[in-house]
Amino acid sequence: MASSSGPVLVIGAGLLGASIGLGLQHLGVRVYVRDSSPTTEAVAQDIGAGQSVRAVHAAGQTLADPALVVVAAPPDVVSELVVEALSDFPNAVVIDIASVKSAILDDVAAAGADLSRYVGTHPMAGREKSGPVAARGELFTSMPWVICPTETTSARALTTAKNLAVDLGATVTVLDAAEHDETVALISHLPQVMSSLLASRLQDTPLHHLSLSGQGLRDTTRIAGSDPALWVQILSANARPIVESLYEVRTDLDRLIATLENPTAGGARLDIAQLMAEGNSGQARIPGKHGGAPKAFATLTVAVDDTPGTIARLLTEIGEAGINLEDMRLEHSPGQPVGLAVVSVDPNRRDELVDALNERNWKVVQ
Amino acid sequence: MASSSGPVLVIGAGLLGASIGLGLQHLGVRVYVRDSSPTTEAVAQDIGAGQSVRAVHAAGQTLADPALVVVAAPPDVVSELVVEALSDFPNAVVIDIASVKSAILDDVAAAGADLSRYVGTHPMAGREKSGPVAARGELFTSMPWVICPTETTSARALTTAKNLAVDLGATVTVLDAAEHDETVALISHLPQVMSSLLASRLQDTPLHHLSLSGQGLRDTTRIAGSDPALWVQILSANARPIVESLYEVRTDLDRLIATLENPTAGGARLDIAQLMAEGNSGQARIPGKHGGAPKAFATLTVAVDDTPGTIARLLTEIGEAGINLEDMRLEHSPGQPVGLAVVSVDPNRRDELVDALNERNWKVVQ
Repeated sequence: MASSSGPVLVIGAGLLGASIGLGLQHLGVRVYVRDSSPTTEAVAQDIGAGQSVRAVHAAGQTLADPALVVVAAPPDVVSELVVEALSDFPNAVVIDIASVKSAILDDVAAAGADLSRYVGTHPMAGREKSGPVAARGELFTSMPWVICPTETTSARALTTAKNLAVDLGATVTVLDAAEHDETVALISHLPQVMSSLLASRLQDTPLHHLSLSGQGLRDTTRIAGSDPALWVQILSANARPIVESLYEVRTDLDRLIATLENPTAGGARLDIAQLMAEGNSGQARIPGKHGGAPKAFATLTVAVDDTPGTIARLLTEIGEAGINLEDMRLEHSPGQPVGLAVVSVDPNRRDELVDALNERNWKVVQ
Repeated sequence: MASSSGPVLVIGAGLLGASIGLGLQHLGVRVYVRDSSPTTEAVAQDIGAGQSVRAVHAAGQTLADPALVVVAAPPDVVSELVVEALSDFPNAVVIDIASVKSAILDDVAAAGADLSRYVGTHPMAGREKSGPVAARGELFTSMPWVICPTETTSARALTTAKNLAVDLGATVTVLDAAEHDETVALISHLPQVMSSLLASRLQDTPLHHLSLSGQGLRDTTRIAGSDPALWVQILSANARPIVESLYEVRTDLDRLIATLENPTAGGARLDIAQLMAEGNSGQARIPGKHGGAPKAFATLTVAVDDTPGTIARLLTEIGEAGINLEDMRLEHSPGQPVGLAVVSVDPNRRDELVDALNERNWKVVQ
């Protein structure tokens, strides 16, 4: 079923590299894995992500020539490994999967490597855990995978990269490297920075004050829990487009500070309203579920007690009413074992659902 | 069952005022509602939030003396209405429910009103919708309700305010007005500002770039969709503590900009790592579910197709395994009708749940 042909050599057997190996092996594609850490490489082999290169050598065998080399190492060593792979495997297509693309492309070009066989890519898959033990072949299922060809990329290299992404269930988007980097600066790196700046203000807040926190604070700070080591590499590799966005944030922040320093001055309220409205219009542009146009779902809040199965029963009964759940969020409140399930549905079905739930004795609170 | 005694006069029959009226009437407490808009007042009466003051007068009757007046009007008219109520009803306790407290207290004191009968309060309940039609008596169930007495507040006034909150199912927290305002500046107003500043950067981003957005961007910008009219009043009424936090944000932002302008300089990486780590430690302080100490739940990601009942079936089977669902989030990806359910459970039960779900043919992807 796979369009990819093997063998594939995966360099870097962390979460993403090992997940690529696993996914390909499930499809019957032969994979070798290599990692700077012998332990990581051995674990990757054990979980089925591919054959350890060290083990091949130790057995006195030689590596079959790879058709594709996937560099899945930490961002700060990717360029070097790509250049090396292009030289070591003169027939292979070489791709990397780092989350920043221009800097790597520049490095590879500056090294005089064969750019026709290289394609930068970026699978936008979760990273809450790390290491090969957390690897899953399905990690990329329905996630975007951005592919960044250049004018010198060969048709074979581009097709090989696309086949890999499609084989692993991802959705391919083609962008050039600069466009990719500007996009992720805005939709991924800037949110990370803003979340970290916000959360760092809570370092000295008394816990009994934080116990008043609502869902808004939790949502805005969730990604502030991300791994600093990874983000140092990402932020420094994509510094330029991030700084451009941060200049604009600083301009707005300065404007807001000036306004709030004198909140009764003429025009102050209009100025705040404008800033809020700009936030409204930016937020409204973010596409909804399944990449479709932004769509306002109707929400419905139901009080639920905190026992196993309550949420399941609620959702079973929503399903029985024939209404599709578009989204669900659980909200919990300090001090009480009662939660709120915020259910999103098609606005045209909301009233019907409220009636159905009321009939079944659910407490619809909003 | 109610500890509150009537009649209660609710001034301002929007979502919160009408919800208070509804909740009290359900408990058998007599409520009058008054609103500057005759239509809003009539709707509030129609939904059962209390008797319209205009209707009482039109019927040639007189208002019974209220034991409690709840000022639930927009923040910018609250002080005036509190002062007026203290004077019009010399035996009543008067409370307000605005989300900023010091400015109102100062105004009421400056007007020479009887502070012994006044208590500022702040029920921290949702505001995604507005108007009396959206009112629900259960709106305050298990939400925090902050009560801000002063040294001159009488015991009767304080008890009356507490009884109201408890009757409506809320969890009472006592703070002084300045402490309340500093707390909400940090846990509610600053997240709002940061989310709006971030979202406003998306105003001109091409939609095909925004289609790559992940859950991080959605979470950090959700509250940027809030009502500008309300937030203008909140931000200007609490300008001082918000500005103090914004100065600190600006200091960190300037530091980060300087670092990213020269990301290869000595110490640059350490500086970024430190900023990220500060975000980590702030985020880790936010209490988890039920106001308990922050606790790391184990998460588990399951691929789910987009048909009615799938999520319900998943949660039913989690319940059948005897494992309590601590939280759930649905993630959807561009271009494909497959979603991911991210389920949070007790870390000690995670492996058991993975086994149970695998046995039942669920695709556990992470």
